[in-house]
Order: sequence, then structure tokens, then C-alpha cells
Amino acid sequence: MASGSSTKLWGGRFSGKTDPLMQKYNESLSYDRRMYAQDIRGSQAYAKATCKAGILTPEERDAIIEGLEKVREEWATGTFVIKPETDEDIHTANERRLGDHIGTHISGKLHTGRSRNDQVATDMRLWLRDELDNIEKYLIEFLKVTAVAASDQIDALMPGYTHVQRAQPIRWSHWVMSHAFMFLSDLERLRELKKRVNKSPLGCGALAGNPFNLDREFLAKELGFDGCIQNSLIGVADRDFVVETLQWATLMMNHMSRWSEDLILYSTAEFGFVTLADAYSTGSSLMPQKKNSDSLELLRGKSGRVFGQMAGFLYTIKGLPSSYNKDLQEDKEPLFDCVTTVQNSLQIASGVVATWSIHPNKMKAALTMDMLATDLADYLVRKGVPFRETHHISGSCVQAAEKQGLSGIDQLGLEALKKIDNRFEADVLEVFDFERSVELRSSIGGTCRASVVKQIEELNKFLQLG
Amino acid sequence: MASGSSTKLWGGRFSGKTDPLMQKYNESLSYDRRMYAQDIRGSQAYAKATCKAGILTPEERDAIIEGLEKVREEWATGTFVIKPETDEDIHTANERRLGDHIGTHISGKLHTGRSRNDQVATDMRLWLRDELDNIEKYLIEFLKVTAVAASDQIDALMPGYTHVQRAQPIRWSHWVMSHAFMFLSDLERLRELKKRVNKSPLGCGALAGNPFNLDREFLAKELGFDGCIQNSLIGVADRDFVVETLQWATLMMNHMSRWSEDLILYSTAEFGFVTLADAYSTGSSLMPQKKNSDSLELLRGKSGRVFGQMAGFLYTIKGLPSSYNKDLQEDKEPLFDCVTTVQNSLQIASGVVATWSIHPNKMKAALTMDMLATDLADYLVRKGVPFRETHHISGSCVQAAEKQGLSGIDQLGLEALKKIDNRFEADVLEVFDFERSVELRSSIGGTCRASVVKQIEELNKFLQLG
Amino acid sequence: MASGSSTKLWGGRFSGKTDPLMQKYNESLSYDRRMYAQDIRGSQAYAKATCKAGILTPEERDAIIEGLEKVREEWATGTFVIKPETDEDIHTANERRLGDHIGTHISGKLHTGRSRNDQVATDMRLWLRDELDNIEKYLIEFLKVTAVAASDQIDALMPGYTHVQRAQPIRWSHWVMSHAFMFLSDLERLRELKKRVNKSPLGCGALAGNPFNLDREFLAKELGFDGCIQNSLIGVADRDFVVETLQWATLMMNHMSRWSEDLILYSTAEFGFVTLADAYSTGSSLMPQKKNSDSLELLRGKSGRVFGQMAGFLYTIKGLPSSYNKDLQEDKEPLFDCVTTVQNSLQIASGVVATWSIHPNKMKAALTMDMLATDLADYLVRKGVPFRETHHISGSCVQAAEKQGLSGIDQLGLEALKKIDNRFEADVLEVFDFERSVELRSSIGGTCRASVVKQIEELNKFLQLG
Amino acid sequence: MASGSSTKLWGGRFSGKTDPLMQKYNESLSYDRRMYAQDIRGSQAYAKATCKAGILTPEERDAIIEGLEKVREEWATGTFVIKPETDEDIHTANERRLGDHIGTHISGKLHTGRSRNDQVATDMRLWLRDELDNIEKYLIEFLKVTAVAASDQIDALMPGYTHVQRAQPIRWSHWVMSHAFMFLSDLERLRELKKRVNKSPLGCGALAGNPFNLDREFLAKELGFDGCIQNSLIGVADRDFVVETLQWATLMMNHMSRWSEDLILYSTAEFGFVTLADAYSTGSSLMPQKKNSDSLELLRGKSGRVFGQMAGFLYTIKGLPSSYNKDLQEDKEPLFDCVTTVQNSLQIASGVVATWSIHPNKMKAALTMDMLATDLADYLVRKGVPFRETHHISGSCVQAAEKQGLSGIDQLGLEALKKIDNRFEADVLEVFDFERSVELRSSIGGTCRASVVKQIEELNKFLQLG
Repeated sequence: MASGSSTKLWGGRFSGKTDPLMQKYNESLSYDRRMYAQDIRGSQAYAKATCKAGILTPEERDAIIEGLEKVREEWATGTFVIKPETDEDIHTANERRLGDHIGTHISGKLHTGRSRNDQVATDMRLWLRDELDNIEKYLIEFLKVTAVAASDQIDALMPGYTHVQRAQPIRWSHWVMSHAFMFLSDLERLRELKKRVNKSPLGCGALAGNPFNLDREFLAKELGFDGCIQNSLIGVADRDFVVETLQWATLMMNHMSRWSEDLILYSTAEFGFVTLADAYSTGSSLMPQKKNSDSLELLRGKSGRVFGQMAGFLYTIKGLPSSYNKDLQEDKEPLFDCVTTVQNSLQIASGVVATWSIHPNKMKAALTMDMLATDLADYLVRKGVPFRETHHISGSCVQAAEKQGLSGIDQLGLEALKKIDNRFEADVLEVFDFERSVELRSSIGGTCRASVVKQIEELNKFLQLG
Repeated sequence: MASGSSTKLWGGRFSGKTDPLMQKYNESLSYDRRMYAQDIRGSQAYAKATCKAGILTPEERDAIIEGLEKVREEWATGTFVIKPETDEDIHTANERRLGDHIGTHISGKLHTGRSRNDQVATDMRLWLRDELDNIEKYLIEFLKVTAVAASDQIDALMPGYTHVQRAQPIRWSHWVMSHAFMFLSDLERLRELKKRVNKSPLGCGALAGNPFNLDREFLAKELGFDGCIQNSLIGVADRDFVVETLQWATLMMNHMSRWSEDLILYSTAEFGFVTLADAYSTGSSLMPQKKNSDSLELLRGKSGRVFGQMAGFLYTIKGLPSSYNKDLQEDKEPLFDCVTTVQNSLQIASGVVATWSIHPNKMKAALTMDMLATDLADYLVRKGVPFRETHHISGSCVQAAEKQGLSGIDQLGLEALKKIDNRFEADVLEVFDFERSVELRSSIGGTCRASVVKQIEELNKFLQLG
Repeated sequence: MASGSSTKLWGGRFSGKTDPLMQKYNESLSYDRRMYAQDIRGSQAYAKATCKAGILTPEERDAIIEGLEKVREEWATGTFVIKPETDEDIHTANERRLGDHIGTHISGKLHTGRSRNDQVATDMRLWLRDELDNIEKYLIEFLKVTAVAASDQIDALMPGYTHVQRAQPIRWSHWVMSHAFMFLSDLERLRELKKRVNKSPLGCGALAGNPFNLDREFLAKELGFDGCIQNSLIGVADRDFVVETLQWATLMMNHMSRWSEDLILYSTAEFGFVTLADAYSTGSSLMPQKKNSDSLELLRGKSGRVFGQMAGFLYTIKGLPSSYNKDLQEDKEPLFDCVTTVQNSLQIASGVVATWSIHPNKMKAALTMDMLATDLADYLVRKGVPFRETHHISGSCVQAAEKQGLSGIDQLGLEALKKIDNRFEADVLEVFDFERSVELRSSIGGTCRASVVKQIEELNKFLQLG
Repeated sequence: MASGSSTKLWGGRFSGKTDPLMQKYNESLSYDRRMYAQDIRGSQAYAKATCKAGILTPEERDAIIEGLEKVREEWATGTFVIKPETDEDIHTANERRLGDHIGTHISGKLHTGRSRNDQVATDMRLWLRDELDNIEKYLIEFLKVTAVAASDQIDALMPGYTHVQRAQPIRWSHWVMSHAFMFLSDLERLRELKKRVNKSPLGCGALAGNPFNLDREFLAKELGFDGCIQNSLIGVADRDFVVETLQWATLMMNHMSRWSEDLILYSTAEFGFVTLADAYSTGSSLMPQKKNSDSLELLRGKSGRVFGQMAGFLYTIKGLPSSYNKDLQEDKEPLFDCVTTVQNSLQIASGVVATWSIHPNKMKAALTMDMLATDLADYLVRKGVPFRETHHISGSCVQAAEKQGLSGIDQLGLEALKKIDNRFEADVLEVFDFERSVELRSSIGGTCRASVVKQIEELNKFLQLG
């Protein structure tokens, strides 16, 4: 019947019943041990539910719960000894060790009606739920530090840029808050995501459901889940909670990359608006004078790491047949690393904000009169001239000042302005005032002081929610 | 001072004031005209708001609103004549044409305090809001067709697979519903996303806010927005609503790729569970007998198109300095194409479900007795044997049947089973019944009839919401 | 047997033999018509080969070749009339039209032993081969313009940056050439890629090969291919040439994004090293004074478009079963758009270089004495002091100057230097000379004039090859 | 002057000179220690070159070389003790430890004119060069195993598929070789890539080049590099060799995903063409009868891991300013993991091929007569009927057989065939022979025996090269 390949050539290597490399390629304990506590907690709840369903006696249940408690302590204290020949993942390791403690005649009943398929989904959701809480905590801290900085530093005026070209004067704190609002929407999304993570797949079995009348709602409640997944096939196959987390983190780290980019520019010698604390900078092994914003560059660079995790995992699950396939084992490493990266990044970012020094004088020095060209145009608008015309007139003023080699349009003087357009009057000179320009932007979301204060209040209000 | 490159060599081509290729590279009218109606609607509201702020007289306001109405009709009837030298995007095109109709002394006032930066953000949000409504409509239709199919076809039993290997018997409709729940969570996310799209950036100006006391809340209400974006810098720079839409669509199309993959397999000669209607199949130019599931392959393939749009746009905005940069112009083409792809894909998928023919006899023929090995193990579990032991015993039965060349474990007979383990009794023969196996999975989410019916009810309940 | 879904509900819409939306979803003529000439050329060659194989008479062959010539002219002159009901792709359109011209009793013989599967692969390779030649031409032009600029502008010194912090003085042209070498390696890779594109799949049939003794080598030669693909299954399924092109373009556009980023910074008010010609800049609709480097921002932004095309197509073909699947139809739109984007981008970039103005005085003004701290350390190295010690000493000098509020370490004076380390002697003052520092970097690849000249020569030498 | 944030609130945590988390975030020794041997080798060569340049005495040079030898041994034997406060990366760790051994008055001279920027680029290229050699070795082994299987198993006929629908009969070995050719082109690309990796950046300094007349060509030769990088700025900034490796690996693993997909299908119960050895399969914790192709699913799944690494790193370097930025530190982890994944995957794949069992009888049973419909059409083509007409006639035969419920078109009988088209003659019955159909495909690349043998020869020939 079956005809194998000529094993003469490869026999030495491939004839064995096992391939040690395949065992290594297949095992997951080296990383899924990170979920040992969740795996144990899930099994303890499962013991209660199977007891309730009449499969375990109360004594067996208690033996299992206590035995697992011992296993947990072994992990916690670093005394768990892995047996590589049997412990291929955290589930088999924990059950094997439970058997050592209480005998396999009892431990062997724990897996009744359960599969590693629903077990691993449960462990991951429990683990992620807690870590998302931590992420939320760090994100809120970052937003609070940011709001404090915006509040403290609200006096400073700086150039607002579009296309990295000086555009209009703004408050430094208006810029600070602009990023804060991006991160605030990350917080909003995070809270939505958490709801979807916290659903129970336990009791779905390998794929078809549980045949022992197991009370899945009891199980869910025991584990603090908000309800059960309603279809056993997706209970074991659904990794949307991983995708969503990676997508969430990608967008958050994308915000981080843009925030870092701005700050890297603002801390160059050429801009000079801000200096990072030494704790978040490093020097050069060759150049004694250097001070580099390494923290920001790492934050920016790690946006790629997280993006890659998202893109990679979406690639892994593309076109996958339904229910469980081993490809799904590739879910854990990107998720674990992503969570660590995000938590660290948020804390680093908080540290950067809490310790930066800003240089209002340098910001002020970077404000140039041509940045008031729109205000000059608006001056005539207020006298009834159509904006398209005033835009043109103001452009002529800028050119005139440039041609005469003046430092700015304010140096043209009233007479020259009148020559360009005789609707200019004496009060036009009031236009050449950065503070006035900033304070005029008083509609919602504008850069005037009151608006920035209101933004800070809105942010603080949102942080209270959730 | 400034010294240019030696223009001798390249002068012929590069000396001009303009580069025609650059104009083409820069223009967006060829695709952003898709938003002509939104652009006009936004301008009409803006005219009202600027009138309220005292910049336009009521007469000017009305002239603008009516003039824009004419422009809208020209687009709608295909009579708008583009002037390439001035009409680089939909905003300039519409304003230029408005000027033709009502004179630039009035039309020239419309742009007061406004920038193309807030204008384009407004247009895109208005456009996307409406298209997301359409997507929701098509998604709900797809879910309804699916629920009807699941309901009608609930009698059919088929092999449930893990690793594409036969695992346990399930209802066909349980499989149908498993995918439905994935798409249902897409619906949940879509409704969250819509909230964030529907915010007004109008009145943010170029970057710093509006200096004319413009009533942004009035503007938002006029345009049906749920409130204003609170910071002008992100009002013009935020493209998270594009990212979120692309991420949402990527996950939805990933679900489509997995659903298609299953159906492509199930419609092969080897599986034979389902046949697509001719409308969703095609033949071969060379092989007369072929009938290919092209619709499903396109659905699966287009998951890559949408993924690429998401990945590409996230790449574009990575590390971008804050506020507006021209890179953002790359937001429209992926968004537009993504929306079209998603809308078409959902409709095609509905058509596939509504017209497929299933083959219950072939499903039944694919059910094999070894798929009841777990049930055999469970039989002993119910007699108190630990599952790990029963798993082993049942495995021995499978091997024994294989060794004897029997068609299945049910052919071993009671005596042989007893020899393997004497706890088997006469009632063990009841185990060899696929319907019984399916009906035993009666916990929440299991594959028994009542559970599948409940799943369909849950889905229909959710569709009512929102 | 088969049981369809309840068509009552959906019957109105889904009961037909066809779904118009599915026809639209499936058709490719709207974009693959771009390859009409290649499709015709391939068919003409195929007619010759099938004649050689005895299937066509010489008269039939000639009729086909001439008939196709007419079809080509119809496309070229825009007179080809598409019949939507039959012309679903360029292959069927051309054959249908050929039949109109010469009768289907002859045209119907053309497709003998051929499939659209090998036909489309042939068309795409022919088309891409020519377009890669164009890309090479534009890339070489860009490199030549760059070399001329580097040569003309070699006198200018500027700050070299790491971490966007001033590090050591370099020649402007050294920076120019650094990017040139990245693009030069793109050229090297492009030439490798072209070899692999130019292989013939024609004669592979649908999947299994040609049963009429067709002379595939003759066919390949007729079409200017460098040999035949050796296995018919991959002849029809291989889209590596698309992937490779997209990967190539992604890396090239990544280089473009980094080159643009530098230039965007260098053209800010804060740096001020370079000004783009008006042809490659744009203004603001609101702010009269603005001049934005839109060309560079588009170049940077479009790196995302191309990256997305690569990522998306790799996603589409992930896990695809072998030979032809309809998913592959998603290959053309990303490839076509990528080629256009790359060709335009290279030309825009050439225009930017050929017309920029540099500002050597501003570069000079940005050179600060602390950038010579390494040179100061090296001074002591030359006197035998270990570098780690000199690095420390030089750092002390920088700090001393800072503390005293001096403009630079050169202002400390010899005595102060001696106090910091008594191995400083009078000749130390020679260190404070930017030109000297630059010229000292004379090892291969250094920033001294001779080295930069050699770099330009190396580049020009490479352009001659290939 | 500068005004910091209010440190009252955050002071406790952020007031220190350092942030321990930042140190962890910044360090790379935990992973770049993998290059300890390359770092030492590079430093030993550098000691020779700086001696040649007159900076080190021969005695100092020898002390450094021998001291480094001791450090290498400490790493190799696991006795190197890391000092976390100073050893932030492999470069500082090695130099610090060298100082312990030979005194910092000598070790402190080693870094003269060198920067970690060129050092890390050198280490990575040396490391990658060796690992690419290993990859090549494993890839060649995989191709050889594959060629042996194709040769041994050439007799087996199986259905060839398009769209996973049975299309035409082919040889099993033709399918085997189709994948081999994809991997063969990976080998071709790998050899091109290796050339570009093996270039020396050493001597580029931090960014501007080396000021001590260092002989970079001597250095390159010492380290086995094929020449020097010609521009110091890209010497330190160029990570194209990382991108190219990741892109290469992505395409190779994409091939792996498609190869695995086919084999996963072919090893289902429904297809049944091939069985994996136990060493490459696993069972189920719940279902005793299961045998899953885990090795193939991991291979397919890991294509996502590698794709993600490529996408992620390209994201990291998008829009990065030139020369060195700390973002580049994100290059090592994806590269290291990618190399390991690729090496393991190739070895696993070799094991799978070397030990699989094929089932020619099941393949034969899957051949159905409708797969000869093209041959039937071709029969009439040989009698001069236009293919388009014969395609239609053959289609009618297929339909007729279906309508009559026959097992295949061969059962229609000559008379029935004649009724459909009277040009059918007695010899038409010869058409219904799978072996004949296969052997007719005799043009280059076809599925006949001789062609497959030639394919194997071509592959073996290519393996000899390089």
C-alpha cells in the first residue's frame, strides 16, 4: 500500500520514532509557563464544575484544588522541575505535577470533557484580562502626567507647525494636549476591548461542546468572566481577542511614534524647545559632547515591533480552516511580548514627560512675524474684505518684507502697509502680537488659554470614567 | 548665497516653474471627487455658521448655499467641467465653480477661518459615516441569510474537524453559526467605530483653531455630528478613524477568508458537502468539466487587498510629525477602495449562502465510527473511571479495530470490548450513534439541536439592537 | 438529495442564474486591459508555435496574426468596443474580437492546449519586463542627477547628525552620496530581479503541461524570454515575480522615505540648509506665508502605499493551495499601481535634486565647536593617551566651556585646557577647524573631499554596467 | 530659563538620575550576546589595524588579542559574569572585561576611531554571514530529500487540482517538483543576498569616517569580507541586509505555507494521499483516535511570524533620519529569531519529506473520468475541429454522463459519443486512460515521466553551483 521515501539516504537521521528538533519546534512550555497561575485557577474552577456535574466527588475536588495550590507555589517559588519528555505545555505540566502530588487516579479525572483547546483559550483570556488592567493603569498615569505638564506649562507660546513649517503661534500646552487626546481615544478603545476579552470559552471541549451537563455559567462566574462564548467551535478557535489587542497596541504605539517624532525634533539643537532628563538620554561611545534622546527613539522604533506582531499574527490566521489548528500556537509569543512592550513604553513615556525641561525662551525666539500673516488677512476680513482677497494682500506684505530684507512684516510700517492696501489702518499694528493671535483662537478646540484649560478638564473627566 | 545644482544638464526638463508630472503626483481630484456632495454639504453648513458669526450677510449666505446647490447638481448630472489648472482637489474645484456662479466677491468669503485641513477631515468623516451605515446594512443582511440557512438546515450532521482531521460529529448548522458569531462581533465593533467617526473637526482651521468666535457646536449639529473634536491640532491631523475602519475591515475580511476556506474545502469532490449556485461559480477555458468556487476564492483573496490597505496606511502615518502633513493625502484611496470591497464582499457572501445546496448524505457518509472514540471514553467516565484511563482504553479499541481491518469500533462487538476492558457492558453499543453524540453536547454552546436553536435566537436578538 | 436554503426570503434577489454584482466582482478587464498589447503579442507567438506543431495551417496562423494586429490597433486608437456580457478579461475580449474579424472557425483554434492560466502569467511577465526597464532608466537618471549635485556642491560643510543631534562636521555631498549608495543597491537588486521575471510560462496549459508537442523554447525565443519555466504547475501558479517586484519597490520606497525625511528637516526654518524649487512645493489655502515641501511628503507617504501592496499581496497568497486559484487575480492591481508609483516617484525625486538650492552659509552657521570634541580627544590619542581617557578629558572640556557660558570649547583658551589636562600643547588650537576635521576623515568611505570624489566615481562606474 | 514639570506629584518615582526601567528598556546585552564571538573577532582585527596605523604598539595589540581570547572562552564556557551597571551591550561588556584582564590603560585604546555604530554593524554582518551559510546548507538538504522522494515515487498518478477542484491527472512527483522549484529560486536569491551581507562597515566611525588613516581594506580582508562599504554614513545606518534577509525569509516561508497547505489537505481522511510519520504528528488530549499534522501546521503558522518580523522592521526604519538612530536597535531580535525559525523549519520540512508515506491507491481512486474531458476535446482537435468547438462538445459529453447517472464519460459508450458528435471514432476509447493522458504532456515542464526526470536533473545540477 503505502510506500515511503527511500530511507537509506536519510535513515540515520529521520528513521527514529521522534525527531528531537520536532519536539523543540512543537513545545510551548518555554513561553506558556507565563500563564501558570491562570492555568491553575482555571483547573480549580473546572474541578468545582465537574464536581457539581457529578463526575468528581467533593473529596476528589478538594484534593485537586489543594494539589494545584501546591503546584502554583512551586512555580511561584521557582521550584517547579520541568520534565521535558512529558511537559510539552503548561497544561500537561500542571496536570502531570498534580498527579505526582495526589495520584493519577484522581488527577486523571480533571480533564474530563475538557480539551487543551478550550483550556488554552481560557488561560489566555484570564491572563490578558489582568494585563489589560495593568495597561489601563499605566495609560491613565501617562495621561495624568501629561495633563499636569500641560497645566504647569500653559504660559509658553511656540510655533505651531504644518508640514514641519512654521504656521501659526500656539500654546505649548495645546500641542501637549493634542497628543493627549490621541492617547485618550486609545483608552476609550481599550475599555471596549476589555469587554470582549472577558468571555469564557471553558466547557467548549475540543470543538463540539460538553456532554456532561457542565454548568458553563457557573464556571464563568467562578473565573470572573462576563458570560460564556455561545458556540463551541469558536470557543476554541476564536483568537480575535488577540488580534484586537495587537491592533489596539499598534495604533497606540503609532501614536507613540508620532509623539516621539515631535519630541525628537523639538530636542534638537536646531529647535531646542525641550531637553530630556539624563535618565532618558544617553551619550556616545565616540563623541564626548553628545546627548541623545534614546528613550524617544526606542519608543518610536518599538512601534515597528508591535506593528509586526499584529501583521504577523493576522498573517498566521489568514485562511485558516475553522476550529483549532496548530498554527494558533503562534498566538502567544507576539501577544506576550506586545503586552510587555506596551506596558514598558507607557511607563517610559510617563517618565519622559514628568522630567522634561522646556525652554520657553527658545520657543519664543522661534516665533516669526510671518506666522501672523493669517492674522493680518483676518484683520481685513473683519473690515469686510473677502478672505481670498485678504489672503492675497497678506501674501504681498510677506513678499514686500522679504524683498526689503526686513526681519518681519511688522517692520514694514503702517505707510507701507497702506500702500499695499489702503484699508489698513492704525490698529493694524495690534495684529503683530503672538499672545493676541493665540488668544483669538477661542472657539472650541482652539489654542487660547481658556480652551486649553477646558481640554485638560475634559481629559480629567474622562479618566474618572471606566 | 544659495547655490543650485548645475542646471545645464537637466535644465531642459527641470527649469520650468512647474513640473507637469508633479501636478499629477499632487492632485487628488481624480479620486476625492467621490466626496463632492459631502464637501458641498460641509460648505453650506459653514456658510450658515460664518453668517451667524457676522462674517457673511444673510444674503451672501443664501447666495452661497444656492450656488453650491447648482454645483452639486452639476456633479450629480455629470456636467461639472473640471479645469485642471486650478481644480487640484474637490475643495478648490467646488469653490472655483461656486465663484463662476455667484462671483468671487461672495464665494471668496466662504473660506474665512477655514483651511483645507479641517475641510478634508470633515468631508471624509461625513462620507465614511454614511458608508459605514451601508456596511452595517449589508452585514446584517448577511447575518440574517446565514441564520435562515442555519435554521433550515439544522437536521444535517457532519464531521466536525480540528486540524482538518475528523474529530467529532456536529450539526452542519453549528458550523454555520460558528462563523456567524465571528461576523456578529464585527457588527459589535462596527457600532463602536461609528461613534468615533461621527465627530466634527470643522472649525479647527489650519491647526490653531478659529479666531472668529465660530459656533462649532452649531456646525456639528447642522452636519449631524455627535459633538466636536476638542483640540484643533488633532482635528486636522487625526486619521485614526481611517485606521480603525481599515483595521475593522481587515478583521472582518480575515473572517471571510476563513469562512471561504472552509467552504472551498467543503465544495471539493473529496468533501462534497456543499455546492455553490452557478451564479457564484465559473468554468475553465480549457477543461470542460470544471466548476470552480471563484466567488469564495475572490472573497478569500480580497482579504489580502484590505489587509494591505491597513498595513500600508499605518506605514504612511508612522512617525509623522503632528498636525497636517501631505503624507495624509494617501488616506483616501485605500479607504475608498476598502469600503467598496467590503460592501461588495458582504453582498457576494449573502448570495453564496442564500443559494448554496448542501448534501446531507455526503456529510453522513463522511462520519466514521472513530469519531465516537471520545464518546466511548466518556461511557467509562460515567462509570467512574478516570478520563485519562478511559482515553487510553478507547485508544486501544480504535487500534484493535484498525488491526482487524474493521470498518469501525462499532464492529468490534461487545465481547472484544469487554476483553479490552471488562467495565464495558451491553449498553455500550448505544454509544455508536452519531445523533446521540451530537445531542449529548447540551451545555451552552454545544452542538445539540436546542443549543443551535438558542444560538440563532441570540443572533437575531443582537441584530435588533444598534 | 441536495437541499437549498429557503429561497422564499431571498428569492427575489438571489434566484437568478447570475448575480450582476458577482460579474462585476469577478471581471478583470477594467484593469487587465492595460496588458492588451502583451496579450496580443503572446497570442501571435502562440499561433506560430501551434502552426509549427501542426494544429494550425500557415494560412490560419497568418489570419490569426493579422486579425490580432487589427485588434491591437483598435485598443491603441481607443476604438475597441467592450461587450460586457462576454469580455470578462483581456484574454476573452481579444479572442472574441479576433473571431469577429476572422471567424470563430479559425479563432477558435488559437486556444488549443492553452489556458488562461498560462496566458495571464505570460502577459504579466511580458508587461512587467518592459516596465522594469523603464524603472531602471528612471533610477539611473535619478542617480546621475544626484551625482552631479554631489559633485557641484562638494565645497559645502554641514553638521553630520546621529540621533538628529549634531555629531561631527561632514561634507554636504557626503550626505548626498550616502543616500545615493542606498539607491545604487536598489539598482543592483533590480538587475537581478529582471532575470527572474523574464522566463516563459507559455505552453504550461492549465496545470499539467502541453499535449501537442508544442515547442516551448521556440515560443520563449519568439517572445524574448530567457528560457522556460521547468514545471507546468508552477508555470501557472508562480507569482514570485510579483512578490519580488513589490518587495524590491518597498525597499526602494523605504529609501525614498528616509531621503525625504532628511530633506524635509533640512528645509525647515530651523535647519534651513536647502530650499526646494517652487515646482516641488505648494502653499497654504489659509496661511499666506507658507511654503511646504509637498513633493517630499508625498514621496515619503507613498512608501506606505507600496509597502501595503507588498504586504497585501503576500497575505493573499499565504497558504494558497498549489497551481491556479482565483485569489491570484488580486495580483494585478497592486502590481500595476506599484509600477506607476515607483516610476513617478523616481522622476519627482530627480526633479527635486536637479532644482534644489542649498544654503552653505546656514550649514556653516550650524557647525558648533562641540562637534569637534572627538577631534580634541583624538589629539591626545595621537600623543599616546588611551582613547577612553581622552574621551573623558574632552567631555570635561565641553562641560567647562558650558559652565563658563562660552560659545564653544575653542574659547576656553590654551591655559584652561592645560589645567584640565597638561598634555594639551599649543598646537591643540589647530583642532578647532571644521575643514581640518573633515579632511582628516580620509580612510575609505570618509567624508574628506578625495573620498567623496571617489564615491562619485564608483557610482558612475556602476551605472555603466548592466 | 528651562522650566520642568511639577515634580511634586511624580517626584518619588521620576526624580532620580536614572530610571531602572529605562535601563532595561535600553539594554541589549540580553540578546546581542549571541554575537559575542563576532564582536571579539572584529575587535581583534581592529587591534591589528590600529597597530598598523601606529596607534597601538605590537605589544599592546598582542595583549588585546590574547585578552579578548580569554573573554571569548569565558562566554563559550558560560563563565562570563555580566555586570549590569556597566554592561549594557555586548560591545561594552567585552571591552569592560578586556580591561579587567589587561588593564584599562591598554584596553582603553582599542576603541580609538571606532564607534559602537560601526562595531554593531560589523558584528551583525559577520554573524549573519555564517548563519546564511547554515541556511543554505539546510535548504540544499531539503531540496535533495525532495528530489529523492520525487525520484522514488515517480510511478504514482494523482489528480492535479486547480481551485482545489480535480482538473487533470498528473504525476505525484510532478507536484513534488513544483514546490521544489519554488524553493530552488529561494536558493538562487539566497546566494545573491549573501554577497551583499558580506561587506565591511568597520572603520566608518560614528558617522564621518576614520581620521587615523586606518587601512579599511586590510580590516575587511582580515574579517573575510568582500570589500568595504564606500560611505561612512551608510556604513553605520544601512540595515538593508537585515531587510533583505527578512524579505527573503518571508518569501521562503510563504512557499512553506503553500507546501504545507497542500500536504495538510492531502493527509486528510477525505484526500488520504499521504501520511506523516509519527515523529511529525501529534494526538489529541481529548480524542483518542486523532492524528494531526502538527509539523505542517507549525510550518504554515510560522510563515506569519517571519512575515511579521519583516513587516515590523520595515515599519521601524520607515522615515528614519539618516545615519544612526536608536530605533535601529530593534533590528536584532527579529533577525535572530527569523534565522532560528528558518533553520528549524527547513530541517523539519526535510524530516517530513524523508519519512512520509504515500498512498498511490488512494490517489488512483481519486482520479475520475471527467478529468479526461480536456483529452476528449483534444481528440477532436487532432481531427481538425477548432478547440472552442471541441471544448463545448466535450462539455456535452460530461453533462450527458452526469444526466444518465454514469460513473464517468467512459461509460457513455461509442454510440452515445457519436450521437453527440459524429466525428468520434472507435479510437476515442483510448482517450480514457490516465497514464496516456499524463504521458501526452511531454513538452518542457509537462507531467510526463521523462519531463519529471529532467526536472529532477535540472534541480540537482543547480545544487552543485554556488
